[in-house]
Amino acid sequence: MKNKYPLIIIGVGPAGLTSSIYASRYKIDHLVIGEALGGLAFEAHKICNFPTEEEISGAKIIEKMQAHAESLGATLLIDKATDVIRENQAFKVITEKGNIFLANAILLATGTKHRRLNLPNENEFLGKGISYCATCDAMFYKDKIVAVNGGADSANTASLYLAEIAKKVYQIYRKSKLRGDSLWAERVVNNKKTEVIYNTEIVGLEGKEKLEKIILNAPYQEAKKIAVDGLFVEIGTIPQKMLIERLSLETNQGGYIKVSPDQKTSQDGVWAAGDITAASNNFRQIITACSEGAIAAESIFKFFKEKNK
Amino acid sequence: MKNKYPLIIIGVGPAGLTSSIYASRYKIDHLVIGEALGGLAFEAHKICNFPTEEEISGAKIIEKMQAHAESLGATLLIDKATDVIRENQAFKVITEKGNIFLANAILLATGTKHRRLNLPNENEFLGKGISYCATCDAMFYKDKIVAVNGGADSANTASLYLAEIAKKVYQIYRKSKLRGDSLWAERVVNNKKTEVIYNTEIVGLEGKEKLEKIILNAPYQEAKKIAVDGLFVEIGTIPQKMLIERLSLETNQGGYIKVSPDQKTSQDGVWAAGDITAASNNFRQIITACSEGAIAAESIFKFFKEKNK
Repeated sequence: MKNKYPLIIIGVGPAGLTSSIYASRYKIDHLVIGEALGGLAFEAHKICNFPTEEEISGAKIIEKMQAHAESLGATLLIDKATDVIRENQAFKVITEKGNIFLANAILLATGTKHRRLNLPNENEFLGKGISYCATCDAMFYKDKIVAVNGGADSANTASLYLAEIAKKVYQIYRKSKLRGDSLWAERVVNNKKTEVIYNTEIVGLEGKEKLEKIILNAPYQEAKKIAVDGLFVEIGTIPQKMLIERLSLETNQGGYIKVSPDQKTSQDGVWAAGDITAASNNFRQIITACSEGAIAAESIFKFFKEKNK
Repeated sequence: MKNKYPLIIIGVGPAGLTSSIYASRYKIDHLVIGEALGGLAFEAHKICNFPTEEEISGAKIIEKMQAHAESLGATLLIDKATDVIRENQAFKVITEKGNIFLANAILLATGTKHRRLNLPNENEFLGKGISYCATCDAMFYKDKIVAVNGGADSANTASLYLAEIAKKVYQIYRKSKLRGDSLWAERVVNNKKTEVIYNTEIVGLEGKEKLEKIILNAPYQEAKKIAVDGLFVEIGTIPQKMLIERLSLETNQGGYIKVSPDQKTSQDGVWAAGDITAASNNFRQIITACSEGAIAAESIFKFFKEKNK
């Protein structure tokens, strides 16, 4: 590992890995830095809409992309970039483990993180009944009673996966109909172990050593409390803001980075790709993240060609 | 096969097949019609930049997407849509084999076709020395002398594949440096069987029963003619125009369909995805086509949900 690269890709999810593959094929020397291999995609229990894979886990699809990127010589560093500072014509990237790298171009592909309930005692129950990742934690709830909060794809797939393991799955959703992929939604509704509680929100958490009850804003079977062993929060994602702010990148109202058609951000020398951008019609799929990563790499290739003329 | 569908997808390449996968998961009943399975992607000898596949042929990647689409119940019809006519709130799709279908929404994903040299006697040599597909026709030139025209990825990969089979490969390119994927370009330059003739164009074709010589606009080793057994034309692609014109869709200067971020065209009820659009920064990769197909399907899903409210 050197300390200076033409390009540093921050993020090791589908966008970062695909941009690395394209960058390698363009012979752009680069480093890929990321906090956690695969990002949120890694957590997906089943992916059924990637065009070349009928059914694959998030871990497996990331493994394929990682192998591809590394086969082309990419250096992947698992470390968190905590700051990016513009210095003259370059950028200084500082990491949690104390690494400092210089780069001529930055591609930000740090994706999103789970949205939290923002309840006062939510943090107290982390790892003690509250989880943001069914794939990671479902096994702790074998034959137990769990709740899932949310009504889109990630909540629906979490419920279905939990239904394979837990005794009972309550899915609490604030709207009157599940949304996202219709096949997932239909399966949740038809699953004997799952029960969707519509038009309802979770407004409180109770428990001594660990989570024991969730409190609803509307009665369910005449009570506003349900006893659960675990709660899986799947109410959407928010962009990883820190580096967006450090680089003063323009965002849309939701905080996602505005990019031009070639994935350039509002700051010269900084590109963005994947879930962190407002591109791809805000659809945020693995396939759209990969596409954005490829487009960004081609744009960066042209940028270096122009510069070295 | 019925004669009326909510959605008809025209095109069975990466964009059409991915949109079918997403449409199936959204439970949008649809038909996929296309002239040739896989479109131009099918012809690719080696694809080395699809994120989950280190190396795969065009035929194989299309086979995976087709299997996925069909596993979800999609009906694929190999037939050419020759006309699409708006009738009241629907569209009538007419095919070469005489089929007539009705649809509420159209997704156009018919991609591009090979650009021709536009030389007066070019058609005479079709199948008699001139080819637009190295993967299809290379085997006819075992131990023979061939020329490839062009300097981007498709020309470079054609030269490399032909070098495995033919005795000698001239690559004629109008610019002074090969472009596209740098690894491919470098391998062409370093291959002992290939010889790139830069800053040169093919201005004529000669031969009696079949192609015998190509005529250049600049001398190569003091002569303007080179004896070849075959010529592979890889000078880029142009959009499939017919249905764009029939539907009066807005295009950019290159004839590619202008789409909004959700892949909608200028005509209500008509979406477009893949190589035929001006989206994805005009990069036209398999991964960008897949992404556009996914985005279009989600947009069509929302269109039907809104309509059925």
